[in-house]
Order: sequence, then structure tokens, then C-alpha cells
Amino acid sequence: MPGVLCGVDIGGTKCSIALIDEDGKILDKIYTCAHVEEEEEDGMVNMVAGHVKELLQRNQVKESDLPALGVGCAGHIRFRDGVIITTSNLEGFDNYPLRDKLQAHFEIPVILDNDANAQAVGEHKFGAGKGYEDMIFVTISTGIGAGLIINGKPYRGMTGTAGEFGHSIVEPNSELVCACGNRGCLMACACGQALPHLFEKKLKEGMETKIKMPPNFNVSKINGQTLKKGLDMDDPLSKAVITDSAYYVGIGLYNLFQILNPPLIVLGGGLTNWGEFYLDKIKETFYELAGNMIHDPIEITLSEIIGDAGVIGAAALSLE
Amino acid sequence: MPGVLCGVDIGGTKCSIALIDEDGKILDKIYTCAHVEEEEEDGMVNMVAGHVKELLQRNQVKESDLPALGVGCAGHIRFRDGVIITTSNLEGFDNYPLRDKLQAHFEIPVILDNDANAQAVGEHKFGAGKGYEDMIFVTISTGIGAGLIINGKPYRGMTGTAGEFGHSIVEPNSELVCACGNRGCLMACACGQALPHLFEKKLKEGMETKIKMPPNFNVSKINGQTLKKGLDMDDPLSKAVITDSAYYVGIGLYNLFQILNPPLIVLGGGLTNWGEFYLDKIKETFYELAGNMIHDPIEITLSEIIGDAGVIGAAALSLE
Repeated sequence: MPGVLCGVDIGGTKCSIALIDEDGKILDKIYTCAHVEEEEEDGMVNMVAGHVKELLQRNQVKESDLPALGVGCAGHIRFRDGVIITTSNLEGFDNYPLRDKLQAHFEIPVILDNDANAQAVGEHKFGAGKGYEDMIFVTISTGIGAGLIINGKPYRGMTGTAGEFGHSIVEPNSELVCACGNRGCLMACACGQALPHLFEKKLKEGMETKIKMPPNFNVSKINGQTLKKGLDMDDPLSKAVITDSAYYVGIGLYNLFQILNPPLIVLGGGLTNWGEFYLDKIKETFYELAGNMIHDPIEITLSEIIGDAGVIGAAALSLE
Repeated sequence: MPGVLCGVDIGGTKCSIALIDEDGKILDKIYTCAHVEEEEEDGMVNMVAGHVKELLQRNQVKESDLPALGVGCAGHIRFRDGVIITTSNLEGFDNYPLRDKLQAHFEIPVILDNDANAQAVGEHKFGAGKGYEDMIFVTISTGIGAGLIINGKPYRGMTGTAGEFGHSIVEPNSELVCACGNRGCLMACACGQALPHLFEKKLKEGMETKIKMPPNFNVSKINGQTLKKGLDMDDPLSKAVITDSAYYVGIGLYNLFQILNPPLIVLGGGLTNWGEFYLDKIKETFYELAGNMIHDPIEITLSEIIGDAGVIGAAALSLE
């Protein structure tokens, strides 16, 4: 079966293994949450390798039909060595040579990269980035990360952590502290981890909300989906929190614009389900800051990858 | 004369035209401030072209001995068209096709780029960046700018304004407003234009200074040199202002580190005359923020270009 690609997306709750066609459409997929139950790292690798072989077999795809096996995984990854340096999503994978462990099961090359980089490659090959030589993909969910496409290729920097712009500081005196320990990085201010705090703050300021809060309501449960429901029912508090997030993301994108001057920024990740309202607010901040410093049009748009962007991106890595 | 290069650095007060050897050493140089007295843009171009020819002639260098003529100029430059979009340093050069105007005087290609990009190329070819595939050059003077070397080449982005990271926002609620109109961009907080404000603020807070201030003393005259004198006499106020500048530069470099993960950042520009005290304070902030997120050593160092970095960088452009 020519043109078919295979990708593996290893996340903290789910693991997807998929075959995709040359247009980036998923042909078949195995989806599991059992990978986190493996007690040993090697056990998880064996499970993943088994699923890949199972998927190939049931679709009558030979391993040699594939250019490579692409693997995306959250965390800091030393690309050249294929090693997970550290990941907050999986227990026990610090300094784990995931690429070589998987490689032992296959003849074709295994390519391991950070999930944001993988999604950037997916967006570049199959999504909104098609035809661009340069673009930035930004994922906004529990955390914020980016993948850079420069001169047609993913740019990973020295270690492989280029694009970790969620940790860039946008408000050094912020009351919000990130898991990294720093105050006021973009992640602390704008994404999933900031939502309960932002929500609670506005509640305390006396802002009213249409979101139902029973007596045992726990504000720490506020997440992107809660606020999406709020947005859909025109809840002022939900819209205010989304606007706050958009403000900081707008600053972050403006900073990326000044540093890299890209023609395209594509936004993906869970919080982009807030849709056009969110995108418009992000653009509002961006264009206000950029003022007359934009000399060529820059496109800021939502991901066009339909379905599981993580595993499609991982499969796209195998085209490199 | 093989291996000789020629560069032109056009600034708001001075214009340098130089021949350099293959090690980046200046062989001969013409230096003028008269270029700003020309009433017409074309008049300035004619003057510069004349000086280039004069320099070649008196050194018995034929134009055809040069690979190209490199020209550096402050401002926003559309690289692919060789056009100055806007520059705050020279009057009347908005949307001026400087490259083609100069090209009319020469047979060899003329290469026009932003001065920070030119200095990055100079540093990469002849200075602290020799042997690196990737590096960032940051210039800190009246303003702040950067030039990016990626995969061995200058990276200019869509328009040619990549590296304008002086305009990235590091303190959105700052009381300091940049010439660009934004509050709290790095330039507003950290470089030459911020110094009088920072100095005055600390004076008002009651901090004592060893800097002599006669009755007619105008705080707007405080600049990098004043503070260098203060630093040399161990003046607490001067050291406090320099530390403030270093704090924001440290944040800026940390943000660059997260976004581009470079192995090397080289600092140049007037304020780096503050030397090791300044560099140490910058590194202090950088490493505090970076914490355990550095997985491979990153070098942060001062420029190694001796002499006129602007014109040496411009000449280095001709090697591209």
C-alpha cells in the first residue's frame, strides 16, 4: 500500500497508533489507555510495538511499505539521541531512550519527537501550513507549546526543545506561578492550568456567572470544556476568563512575530475549541501590539487537521 | 587582492565604509558624518558609492576582486527587495530602494540588510560565533535588536524583520512606553532609551549617587557612558540602574532560549561596555529562570569583534 504512513502518539492518558494516507486522513487506528498501567517502561514499549504490528497486519501493510515510524511524545526530548529527558505525563521515563527501545522492534527508522513539533509537521504537511516554507504551530491546552517550521523543516534547536515558548515570561510580577517554578510565564497566565485561578478571581470580584455551582462545587474542576459551555450560553464570567487567556496568548504570538517574523501561525490544542470568539480576542491583542510594524500579511488561523492531530503529526514525522 | 571584503554601515550619525581581510580585520576605512547632510536620498547614495570606489582605488582593489558589496542599515528592511521600509535613523528613507540605487553604481551584487542581522553574520564569520551552526546575536544600545543564525545562515523571516525582539513584550503593565507605542517591550525597559527614566526613579526613591549633578543637570542626558563612569566609581545608583537593565535583558534572553534553544547568544552594542558586571547580572536572571530546563550548555558571551562591528558585519554579508 504505497503512500501510507504510521504514527504513534504517546500521551499521559491515551496512546494512539494510526495508519494515515498521503492526504493525512486516518485509515485505521488503535486507541488505548492501558499503556500507563504498565509497571516498567520497557513493558509500555513492548505494548506499543505490538499494537503497531497488529495495526499493520490487519491492514495488510508491510513494515517495508513505510518510510519510517513517527512517534510523538509530550516532554523535553533530546532529538538527536531519541531520549526522553523528562516528561510530566508519564511516570518513570526520565532519561529514557524511547527511540532505541522502539527501534529494537523494527527494521525501518523510528523518529521520536516532542508532540508539539510533531503536530507542527502534521499541520505543515496536511493542514493549514501546506505550501508554506515557514510557519509556527502553537498548541494551547493544559500547557502551551509550539513547533517551528523553518525553511520547510522542523527546527528543534540545540537539545530539541526549541518552541517551548509556553515558558517564555510575559508578566514577571504575575501572581500566577507555573509548574516550572517561574512567575508569569505564558503557561501560567493563559492556558488550562490558569483557568481555575482566573475563574475564582472574577467570582471573588463579584462577577456573575450562568454556570451552575452546587454547594460542593470545586473551582479547581473548571476547565476548557466548562468555559466552552459558558461561552455557548453567553456567560459573562466565562467570556471574561477566555478573554484574559486570549490577551496573554496574543502577547505571546506578538513576541513570536517580532522574533521570527513568520507568515503563518496556526493554533491548535484543546482551548481552541473556544473557536472564533477566542481567536478574535487573540487577534485583537496581537494587532493592537503589532500596529504599523506588520509589513507583509501574517495569517493567524486555527488548525485544519481533522481528527487526532497528535497521531497524524507523529505519522507526518516519518516523511522527514 | 584575494579574500578581501567590502562593507558599508549606514547609521544615523556616522557612515563607515571599510575593506576587511578574510579574518575580519579592517584593512582600511573611510568614516564620515557628512552623509546625513545630503538633502536628497540619491545624493547620499552617490556619496557612499563614491567613497566605496575611492577606498577600492587607494587600496588597489578591483571591484571584481570582491564577491559582493555588503551594506548594513538600521531600520526595517524588506530583504528580498532591498528596500528600507522605515528607519528612524535617517530622514526621508521610507520605502526607499537603497539596494537598487547603490547597485546602479556597481557590477558586483549589492546585499542590503538590517544592521543587527549584519552584525550577527559578522559575529558568526569572524567572532564568538565561529564554528557554530546556530547562534543569536543581540545588540543592546539605544535600542535592542537581534540577528538569528539558523542552520549556518542568517534567518530573516517573511519580511526581513526576524530578530526584532527588542519589541517583544516583557512587562505589559510597565510605566515605560517604547517609541513603537507599546508599554513594556524589552526596548522600553532595558536599553538606552530607558536609562534616564530608571535613573530618575531611583533618585526620587532617595537612592544616593556619586555622579555629580550640577544645578542645571538634565537627567535626560543620562546614557550608557554616564553609568559606565558611575560603575567604575562603584556608584550604587548606577549599579542599580544597570542591574535593572540586566534583569529585563535576562528575561529577554531566557525567552529567546525557550523559543529557539540556541547553543550560543552573543551580546554586542554600546551598553555591553558595562562589561562583566552587566553580563553577570544578565546571566543571574537567565539562569534563575532557566533552572533545570537547560539540558545542554548554552554560552552567553560578549562580542569578540574588535573595532567597528557594524561595518565588519556589513562586509561579512558579502560572504553569503
